[in-house]
Amino acid sequence: MRILITGAAGMIGRKLAQRLGKDGHLGGRGISALTLTDVVAPAGFGGPVERDTSDIATPGEAARLIAARPDVIFHTAGIVSGEAESDFDKGYRVNLDGSRLLLEAIRQVPAYRPRLVFTSSIAAFGAPFPDAIDDEFLTAPLTSYGTQKAMVELLLADYTRRCFIDGVGIRLPTICIRPGLPNKAASGFFSNILREPLVGREAVLPVAGTVRAWHASPRAAIGFLIHAATMDTASLGARRNLNMPGLSATVDEQIAALGRVAGDAAVKLIRREIDPVIAHMVDGWPRNFDASRALGLGFGADASFDEIIRNHIVDELEGRVPFKE
Amino acid sequence: MRILITGAAGMIGRKLAQRLGKDGHLGGRGISALTLTDVVAPAGFGGPVERDTSDIATPGEAARLIAARPDVIFHTAGIVSGEAESDFDKGYRVNLDGSRLLLEAIRQVPAYRPRLVFTSSIAAFGAPFPDAIDDEFLTAPLTSYGTQKAMVELLLADYTRRCFIDGVGIRLPTICIRPGLPNKAASGFFSNILREPLVGREAVLPVAGTVRAWHASPRAAIGFLIHAATMDTASLGARRNLNMPGLSATVDEQIAALGRVAGDAAVKLIRREIDPVIAHMVDGWPRNFDASRALGLGFGADASFDEIIRNHIVDELEGRVPFKE
Repeated sequence: MRILITGAAGMIGRKLAQRLGKDGHLGGRGISALTLTDVVAPAGFGGPVERDTSDIATPGEAARLIAARPDVIFHTAGIVSGEAESDFDKGYRVNLDGSRLLLEAIRQVPAYRPRLVFTSSIAAFGAPFPDAIDDEFLTAPLTSYGTQKAMVELLLADYTRRCFIDGVGIRLPTICIRPGLPNKAASGFFSNILREPLVGREAVLPVAGTVRAWHASPRAAIGFLIHAATMDTASLGARRNLNMPGLSATVDEQIAALGRVAGDAAVKLIRREIDPVIAHMVDGWPRNFDASRALGLGFGADASFDEIIRNHIVDELEGRVPFKE
Repeated sequence: MRILITGAAGMIGRKLAQRLGKDGHLGGRGISALTLTDVVAPAGFGGPVERDTSDIATPGEAARLIAARPDVIFHTAGIVSGEAESDFDKGYRVNLDGSRLLLEAIRQVPAYRPRLVFTSSIAAFGAPFPDAIDDEFLTAPLTSYGTQKAMVELLLADYTRRCFIDGVGIRLPTICIRPGLPNKAASGFFSNILREPLVGREAVLPVAGTVRAWHASPRAAIGFLIHAATMDTASLGARRNLNMPGLSATVDEQIAALGRVAGDAAVKLIRREIDPVIAHMVDGWPRNFDASRALGLGFGADASFDEIIRNHIVDELEGRVPFKE
């Protein structure tokens, strides 16, 4: 089986490629080709991996990318929320037009209907919210990023209904703990306040400790992607976009988990300093979900924030908390 | 005040232009210019009316149309549901790209923020439905037409949030009784079975009499448009797309009203002949709504199907039922 990952240099794309490279198969079928593409060169992982540099928003690029007819396409490429808000044109160009060009390129190929897994986001929702957002709640985003995600969700469902693709859109929770360096995502602080103290560095908390959000670990997110690529989609019906399961936690609950796993010294590295712009954006984000539909379809969530932190230590810090020692 | 109507040769655009031409004002302000544009030449109605022929999906056309900075834009242009389903490219080109080009042209003009009223549709929703669809129900359309409408709704909300426009999207019920000749809308039969018998002509009913739908008269629809153009939008908040009030009725209830207003001979002109394709499309359409949000915002609905038929006789048949005489 042939697999294509767009946005393969991004955090999700990279971890997914790593996992697929290690597994060597997907859903019981051997991976004969794994193509990784991004605007910057993605890392390779051994095996039958092809690395590619492309901007999917450039006309013609998508047709080139699917020329080998990948059986599964993980479409994770995109501009993050903060950048899509600050650069209106770029956000629409990459997140909306890039996705549409990919769908159109697929549509132009006769008798080709790949599984397409699209990483949408809970930013597709906007306040005011019910106590728990289920899969029947309207997508009324309060950011351009969320608007672009919700629009691609609609395309994904229509292209699936028309039998051009076999699409599954998964609305990822805030990914926490996001490894690596801070990016332009306005939600970055949810990860910063755990990741940085774990290695003895200060982190700024720009919102109140009572702020509640919906989280999933990178490990859980990769699990969602693999399941979306291998599940029986007949049970989805026409509604192809799913709220992924996660953990609803306040910032203070995150910090308490940090204290339990890494000690008080780590907690003391968090500096509380409200940023009104970020605080305002976060106010419009969802806090809690009813993900029973996804759970019933076999998607699995993290058990606790302590587990999320411990898994981060295993996956990113070679099992050690350097700061604690 | 200057007004632009796109799709001005369409049924809604034409009736709106007629009404504005007759009124000479909108929301208490005199109309100094009324520009009517469509792919075919719209009718003129006296007064300061400019008639224009344009395809809004052609790059550059939208900038030309808004060069005079209209204060209010009624964006009613679009391909109807049946045609958007049979011609995938044309539907996306006109309904999605045309609307986006209009929004983009407005965004490019500094310090310009017109009221933009967009005629969306209840086709933005798809089955399965709750008993009554309210403004918090997800837009999961089951047609390409509905997908395009839902996507433009998202753009309208984002462009409003960004202060490029002051947008109001109104989800029109099935318009009944649609005057004139049958068009390519799959919903045409809801009107045909009343309009044709009223003038002594046969009409085909391609679905079961138990089929329920959500209706509004052309008169009510024009009222929605005028109210959307003149209302205080501060009360809308970020959610700019509204379910319009209507009448929930079965085909058999429509026919009973026809019998009461026009007699049994009219009813006998309806020939029942199931069309599986139309019956299947209609199965995915919404039947009943909770429009309390729109009602609370001052939008008004029709009182009964008898009234809808009587108003049609006044507006389209000079007050007479020729067939009955």
